[in-house]
Amino acid sequence: MHTNLNWLTHATQALDETARNAAQTRQGQLTKPPGALGQLEALAIKLAAMQGREKPQIGQVHICVFAGDHGVAEEGVSAFPQAVTAEMVKNFARGGAAISVLAKQLGATLEVVNLGTASDTGELPGVSQYKLGKGTANFTQQAAMTESQLAAALQAGNDSAARAAASGATLFIGGEMGIANTTAAAALACALLDLKPQQLAGPGTGLDQAGVQHKAAVIQRALDLHGFLPSPASGRGAGGEGVLEALRRLGGFEIAALTGAFIGCAQRGIPVLVDGYIATAAALLAARIRPGAADWMMYAHRSAEPGHILMLEALRAEPLLNLGMRLGEGSGAAVAVPLLQLACALHNGMATFAEAGVQEKI
Amino acid sequence: MHTNLNWLTHATQALDETARNAAQTRQGQLTKPPGALGQLEALAIKLAAMQGREKPQIGQVHICVFAGDHGVAEEGVSAFPQAVTAEMVKNFARGGAAISVLAKQLGATLEVVNLGTASDTGELPGVSQYKLGKGTANFTQQAAMTESQLAAALQAGNDSAARAAASGATLFIGGEMGIANTTAAAALACALLDLKPQQLAGPGTGLDQAGVQHKAAVIQRALDLHGFLPSPASGRGAGGEGVLEALRRLGGFEIAALTGAFIGCAQRGIPVLVDGYIATAAALLAARIRPGAADWMMYAHRSAEPGHILMLEALRAEPLLNLGMRLGEGSGAAVAVPLLQLACALHNGMATFAEAGVQEKI
Repeated sequence: MHTNLNWLTHATQALDETARNAAQTRQGQLTKPPGALGQLEALAIKLAAMQGREKPQIGQVHICVFAGDHGVAEEGVSAFPQAVTAEMVKNFARGGAAISVLAKQLGATLEVVNLGTASDTGELPGVSQYKLGKGTANFTQQAAMTESQLAAALQAGNDSAARAAASGATLFIGGEMGIANTTAAAALACALLDLKPQQLAGPGTGLDQAGVQHKAAVIQRALDLHGFLPSPASGRGAGGEGVLEALRRLGGFEIAALTGAFIGCAQRGIPVLVDGYIATAAALLAARIRPGAADWMMYAHRSAEPGHILMLEALRAEPLLNLGMRLGEGSGAAVAVPLLQLACALHNGMATFAEAGVQEKI
Repeated sequence: MHTNLNWLTHATQALDETARNAAQTRQGQLTKPPGALGQLEALAIKLAAMQGREKPQIGQVHICVFAGDHGVAEEGVSAFPQAVTAEMVKNFARGGAAISVLAKQLGATLEVVNLGTASDTGELPGVSQYKLGKGTANFTQQAAMTESQLAAALQAGNDSAARAAASGATLFIGGEMGIANTTAAAALACALLDLKPQQLAGPGTGLDQAGVQHKAAVIQRALDLHGFLPSPASGRGAGGEGVLEALRRLGGFEIAALTGAFIGCAQRGIPVLVDGYIATAAALLAARIRPGAADWMMYAHRSAEPGHILMLEALRAEPLLNLGMRLGEGSGAAVAVPLLQLACALHNGMATFAEAGVQEKI
């Protein structure tokens, strides 16, 4: 392992089982039929275990959008030109993108981290520039990243988790922007889950059927080149080193940063609300690299990207929303934040049967 | 038709197609792949048509919880004793119920209308008392309501819609509380949709399998008594008079009030966010009595009550949430309010491609 990656081996925080049990007991005493608030009950109990208190609260929400370009874009796998990545970074900074609007509406902190775009964005207010390269290399021809690029991208995510911790954030959302990054995420999911490109490749920002087939063929070429040949018996995907190597060869700067951020949040005890297709691929990577990281993740929504469900199932995730969203940027996670806030409000604010003088079940 | 019901024949407001088209055009210009915000896009466009402006806003939300008891409770169809209806009315007034907490969190207006409970609640702050009776009659033996009771309950709902309009509410949520009211709602859905009690009867607040079977048998007895014998060829359910008579015989005070409120909102041009199982039965009644009422309804969530999906399908509803909630009180609709707010914020606040200088699709 690259020496700069030693931090990845540090332990993640443990959940607080005492707080979990106290919250579970409280849920059973509130003036409602048991279970009648559905997933909102489980959410409040999970947040109690994460925050180590019977009555959890969603305070400051820290949103970080990671941007990076992808060499594989030159294979014609996206409906949008590569220049859009840098243009959207500017749009984030100016407040015009979906995640900008959502962050403002939620009163959340929004930071933007540009890891490396094909077009230079210039200096922008509120945007950190890492300049790891003009995007990754085309992974149908070589590894997407060098070892140094991978280490720096993972560290950039960890840096964001550290800033979230320093600011007292109670929830972390990682977003992403990168033309062609559904191709990279799909390739990674194929490698980690032993699935076929046809199962993971989807329309992304709007490919037609022929485009999706072409995308699957591009992914297959990459899997062939890098030796990730799906086979039910291969047992591939276990072990941190192999996962990191898959990430280096098939991933992207922003996917590595998300992975680093999710692990960094788990090491610092910050709950993570995972967004859609790309973020879930990073969650899968994080959970494979540091299994304890999975304890700190909640899943915001099921994306319209068809293969997302396969990743969610592998993570035993129960996403909160299914609104047909497929935008990325962390937008699906941001839209789900009020559900966490309301779950906490209900858990903390409802009267118990005893307090209200209401009779329980016959 | 009862003379006090003449208001039911008044026309509902028309949606604004110009505003709808303007909003649709705007959605296509925002900096995101077309359709990438999924249902949030359709929601913003629908609200634009309802509010008659390209950029809709969710301002004041008016929540009214209608309570009433059900004579059919004596058949043992609920997991909770009938006294809980009145106890929960007190809990609403004191702020300890789920809907009280949600209304406070959302900054919504919450009013409680007690149409008639088996136990007297006494005067309570913020609770209107209609006292139509100590609950409905047991509809396995006679009609649930007299014509006067039905007219008064429908009017109580219309009164609430009028108060919402007077206060400038931009969204109406109707909630309910009434031990045994899933039995009444299921019986109504059977009558209106020509379905069998086994398809509509569910656990409600927590019946076991034997309890659900008993509930279905109770509903079948009521259908037999009142002549609503499901048959695919009967064509039952069309026409306002027949629907009102089904409501009188099989419904409940709070279900009739919800129905009146939904029609009253459509007549005044107030968008309605429909809650779960009981509220959807009322939405079905409202849409059958005044078909234009359906234009003003949005559906918040799919309830955990299994038969709910059948009502939603009949209404071609596309609910926003599916969180396994089954509490009633309007709680599922309240939880969905932030989705409407965020849909509007995105629609109104995002930059267009031209404004942001972002390139469109290849």
